[in-house]
Parts: sequence; C-alpha cells; structure tokens
Amino acid sequence: MRNIKLIIEYDGKDFNGWQRQPNKLNIQGTIENAITKVTGEEVNLIASGRTDAGVHALGQVANFKTNSTIPIEKIPLAINSSLKKSILIKSAEEVDEKFNSRLSCKKKTYRYIINNSRYGTAIYRNLETHIAYKLDVEKMQQAIKYFEGEHDFKAFKASGTSSKNSVRTIYRAEVMKKEDERIWIELTGSGFLYNMVRIIAGTLVDVGMHKIEPEEVKKILDSKDRKNAGKTLQPQGLYLVKVEYE
Amino acid sequence: MRNIKLIIEYDGKDFNGWQRQPNKLNIQGTIENAITKVTGEEVNLIASGRTDAGVHALGQVANFKTNSTIPIEKIPLAINSSLKKSILIKSAEEVDEKFNSRLSCKKKTYRYIINNSRYGTAIYRNLETHIAYKLDVEKMQQAIKYFEGEHDFKAFKASGTSSKNSVRTIYRAEVMKKEDERIWIELTGSGFLYNMVRIIAGTLVDVGMHKIEPEEVKKILDSKDRKNAGKTLQPQGLYLVKVEYE
Repeated sequence: MRNIKLIIEYDGKDFNGWQRQPNKLNIQGTIENAITKVTGEEVNLIASGRTDAGVHALGQVANFKTNSTIPIEKIPLAINSSLKKSILIKSAEEVDEKFNSRLSCKKKTYRYIINNSRYGTAIYRNLETHIAYKLDVEKMQQAIKYFEGEHDFKAFKASGTSSKNSVRTIYRAEVMKKEDERIWIELTGSGFLYNMVRIIAGTLVDVGMHKIEPEEVKKILDSKDRKNAGKTLQPQGLYLVKVEYE
Repeated sequence: MRNIKLIIEYDGKDFNGWQRQPNKLNIQGTIENAITKVTGEEVNLIASGRTDAGVHALGQVANFKTNSTIPIEKIPLAINSSLKKSILIKSAEEVDEKFNSRLSCKKKTYRYIINNSRYGTAIYRNLETHIAYKLDVEKMQQAIKYFEGEHDFKAFKASGTSSKNSVRTIYRAEVMKKEDERIWIELTGSGFLYNMVRIIAGTLVDVGMHKIEPEEVKKILDSKDRKNAGKTLQPQGLYLVKVEYE
C-alpha cells in the first residue's frame, strides 16, 4: 500500500477540532470523506496531533494508506476540489510505509497571535485574541527565554489531563512585535502537552501586564503546579505552523 | 447639533458593501441602526466613500449629527455593543459642524493583499486574493512608481462609470514583499476612481507575470483607455486602510 503524507492548512473556527466524532463537524472526518471521494476507499487519516475547536493550522501534517494509483502530484487538487474552502491540502508526498505523522514527529512550531489594540478587531476576530491592556513586550521577551531547553512542563498543562511524562524540550521561544499592534508568540519544541501553548501565552500576558516578573516563570516551572501559571488563552489565536520530521 | 466622527473597521465579506439598500445586509444601515439604539434618533451616516461588497476597512471614516448628550468617550463601546462583531467602531471624536467625511477628505490609503503561494489559503480565503503564478515583485516595484504624481486615471476606472474629472494625485505607491508569500500593494492618494485600486493591482499582476514591461504603465496612463489596463482584481484583497483630513 502507498503511504501518503499531506501538509494541510485549515481555518479552525468552522470546526469542532481535528478529531473525528459523530454529529459534529470536524476536520479529520471532512478530509477523510474527501479522500474517499477521490480514491473510492475508506481511509484513516493520522495527524501529527489533534487540534482543539477554533485552533488553526498553517502546516498540519497527516498521512493515510491507499491502494489508489492516482499520481502523487494530482492528489492536492483532487482532494481540494472535494473539500470546503476552509481546509486546503498544500502538498502531498509519497513516504515510507513506516512513516506515521504522530509517532515520527520530531519538532512542532506553534504561533499565538495577540491583537493588542484598544478596541480589538472586526476583520481578524476569529484569527487573533484581543487584549486591550497595553502589554510590555520587552518583559515578555525576557520571560519567554525561561521556557527554552528541557523542562518538566507539568505546571503548563491542562489540569486533570493524563500524561505519564511531562518533560519536553523547547528549541526556540520568541515574542515578536508585528505591525498594527500585533504580538506573535512562537514556540518550537519536541512536543507540547494539552493546552501548553495557550497556558504559556496566558502566563506571558501576565508578565506583559506586570502582574508577575519575567524571572517568576522559572519558579512556576519548578513548582510543577498548574495553579501557579497564567490563564489558558482562547483557541482562536493559536496556529499549528509547522511539523518537522527527520 | 453635535457632529460625531467615527473611525470604523469592518469585515467586508459579511456585507453587500457600505451603501444602505433595502433587503440587503449593508454596513451603513447596520451602523445607523446601532446608533439609533444608542441615541434614540434616526441618523444619516456619511462615509468618506462607499466600499463594494467584499471590500474591507481598517480605518473607514464616517460622521453623523445628533442631539444625544452621551459623553464622546462612551460612544465607541455603546455602539459596538449593539453591533455585529464584523463591524467595530475604533474611535469617536466631536468635530466642527462643517466637517463632512466625504467632502472634507484630503487623502486615502488603500492596501491590496495578494497571496502568492502555490495553493492559496484556507485561513485567509476572504481576506486575500490568491495568484498561483510566482510574481516578479521587483518588476512590480518598478511599475508602481509610474502611478505616483498627478495623472488622468481614466484608463484605470471601471468603464461605463461617470465622473467628470478623472485626474487624481498619488502621493505614495509601494509594492512590499511580506512573510508567508504575501504581497502588499499600497497607494495613498487625493482620491480614487471607481475600481481604480483593483485595476491598478490587476495591471501590476500583469507586470509581475512578465505579460507587460513596467514602462508600459506610463503608456497605459497616457492612452486614457480602460481596455489597455489589466483586469479588475477581486474585492476580497482590498482594504481601505486610512482616511486623512486637514
């Protein structure tokens, strides 16, 4: 069987998240149905990881197995023509049969976009999170550096979620000021716990509002206690930007 | 009577353009209704100019007269709370009774956003125009300079539209390469003819595709003939960014 790897962009606001579930519009099921139309086969689409309702992806990766002989270069357009416009297959590649989007993943990059203007935004209301309080970006830039390296991120995962091991490595962590009063938070890591990026973003907002000092991020990490970290920010500011493999 | 000037952002995809018209969702009527809820008065909202269906505004300006005594600093939030989230009042200011958003206008800035990636975009599908052909941005940057200064823009207005005088002055004209394969076209001018920015953008795309040379823009201007200019690009890439007064 052929193993096909897709790179996928989607607008999270139109869906109840990635995962297939009955009676709820979801991204996985929508793409699987489109693939079935193209190949005539039932397929199981394996993503690098689930994304929650409202979360966007610029570069989600997913793979499926097929006996179809459709040429690889025709696959994106073929699937796209059966899809809603809020999902886009950006590329397709034939990969080794052992490749698994979730298990083979080495690095992921997430972006969180904050609109820091006074009244927020009409145009980007589902694409950014509005925070009216003028944030101190320099302090946020100092604070985010404490996340770089290998840490136990237990304080930065949704409480009540199971995961044996909460140690992850962050390779790059950056806060950037963008045009029109936007702030981008970008993190590249070996993997992310449930809600981890949104809790990190919420904690950085506390730093930007001078509620806590940048150095306190280290103490919060060491405490391994979710209660010490900031709020979980809304999903609509979050983007899965890129997933990397060997 | 007080004369109130508003700065307004809106997502054009949800509306049949600015202008009030029966049985069609429009921006002017939607805001007028919200103002009526706040002031208890019927108002006539005068914009710097109409925008077409699908066209966005980051800084449309409009004014209305009122006897309401509501404090000026409360007006944005009061109107916003009666509005759909696709329209946002960003500021309100009390101005001289002679101020008229359309007639007093000195400069306008428009932006046109092209998504120049191979397969386009799911997330920004209503906010950018996709052109798959890889555009030569340097040639476009040379070409746009021919629009600067005072010219008769007859060749760059929708054919069949009346306007006695098609001479306008362009103060600034720029093509910029942005992240993630985006191209911004920005024009600041004394005023713009119907479809002028979208026709200029279409002509610049012809330059970027090497269909015409940058120097030909001058000839097209001199010809004063709409047939010689490029296509009118789609509305969803167009933004009214800013309107300036004395």
